[in-house]
Amino acid sequence: MTTRTEVAGTREARVANAAFEHLLRLADDRLVLGHRLSEWCAHGPILEEDIALSNIALDLVGQSSALLALAGEAEGRERDADALAYFRDEIAFRNVQLVELPRGDFGFTIARQFLFDAYSVLLWDALQHARHKPLAGIAAKALKEDKYHLRHSSDWMLKLGDGTAESHARAQRSLDELWRYTGELFESDAVDAAVARQGIRVDHEALRAQWREMVADVLHRATLAVPADGPMATGGRTGCHTEFLGHLLAEMQIVARSHPGASW
Amino acid sequence: MTTRTEVAGTREARVANAAFEHLLRLADDRLVLGHRLSEWCAHGPILEEDIALSNIALDLVGQSSALLALAGEAEGRERDADALAYFRDEIAFRNVQLVELPRGDFGFTIARQFLFDAYSVLLWDALQHARHKPLAGIAAKALKEDKYHLRHSSDWMLKLGDGTAESHARAQRSLDELWRYTGELFESDAVDAAVARQGIRVDHEALRAQWREMVADVLHRATLAVPADGPMATGGRTGCHTEFLGHLLAEMQIVARSHPGASW
Repeated sequence: MTTRTEVAGTREARVANAAFEHLLRLADDRLVLGHRLSEWCAHGPILEEDIALSNIALDLVGQSSALLALAGEAEGRERDADALAYFRDEIAFRNVQLVELPRGDFGFTIARQFLFDAYSVLLWDALQHARHKPLAGIAAKALKEDKYHLRHSSDWMLKLGDGTAESHARAQRSLDELWRYTGELFESDAVDAAVARQGIRVDHEALRAQWREMVADVLHRATLAVPADGPMATGGRTGCHTEFLGHLLAEMQIVARSHPGASW
Repeated sequence: MTTRTEVAGTREARVANAAFEHLLRLADDRLVLGHRLSEWCAHGPILEEDIALSNIALDLVGQSSALLALAGEAEGRERDADALAYFRDEIAFRNVQLVELPRGDFGFTIARQFLFDAYSVLLWDALQHARHKPLAGIAAKALKEDKYHLRHSSDWMLKLGDGTAESHARAQRSLDELWRYTGELFESDAVDAAVARQGIRVDHEALRAQWREMVADVLHRATLAVPADGPMATGGRTGCHTEFLGHLLAEMQIVARSHPGASW
């Protein structure tokens, strides 16, 4: 019988292959969020905005594809990006829970995107200088994309927050709901300590401080309140997910799994 | 009671507003096909190919958005692109049935895309010289995009046709199934005659001959047979659709219709 620990990997196993683990975390955040965003493609209510969100989704899936390829090399077990995207189970996914929550209404989608984009821009800004050159290269390219994403989501936060009473209320409610899922973005553990020795160093505490300042600035201008800190959700980085990830993966993986080994 | 004729419009009404009708035909082909293609976004089995198909889907939705905006101006009833995309019923859609068929397997998706891309490149090539300047502008831009789409789908036809026995058989079966839906692309009626007088002239017979030659050339190189001609499906251009369009529109329009008049 396979136990949860075997499948999710023990702490020791994660540290032993820390680069693989770390790259999966980066990749899975973007693969899952990209998939969630793609649900808006041609679903309205504004064609132009659908196209913008779909383009952002494609950027994120593209980033995850490059990161998964790199993760596959780090693992050394001949799993390529497609194998890692389509043939891992829920418990082997390393994304934060924030990105797997259902898309909600447009305000919820934008609020999540804003919170993630602000984090992602700061993260890539740090990682573009990593000693680990392949990752630094991905970071530099992704930084350019995510700066555009952040401008897009920030602009929308201003419009929604400072728009109608209805749009303001919805945006605030979304932020309040999402806040407890933001703590996970800044967690660090033994995997982070291990990859720091391999040329991938991220100071999560510094990142959190910069993120709070950036987020507070936009929310202030949007006449929205920064939610109060409370207990934070956790678990995604070690394979504990909300009920929503399973459904998302079922949909994302059905085609690949229905034709295993298909070469076309 | 609303009769079918009232909703779909009489022949006289269609001719009276021929430019509107014609632009809807162009727009709806691309809106519906773009939506079908977007179903592949992040659904595997190959990440890189998902991204390519999703980019093509976005091009098509972008083209339809520009065409719908122009159609709205031609109609003169203050319906913008979003109103036309999200608040028309099935019977008011003017796309050919070819584009509304379910996506099928990857071979089916590619075969349909190839048949449509070849048509679309030839159509835009003709329309870029139209006296109707706004449409000529859209055509010139779309031609560049669709040339890339055609290269992509042609390359895949060669790979599938000249690949494994399985991929060859699937590609041929898809072509055989799709063939009866290609006749509609080259129909012409009183609407075409009316728009020809307004600077939008397309010689459908010449287009059909060029298309056959182009398709036969690629299929020959792909070791695939050009299907035999038989009875052709018809009706899409006047609002008669297969059972599949209603489901597609329900999914595409649910968000916009759940929040009518929403400004965000």
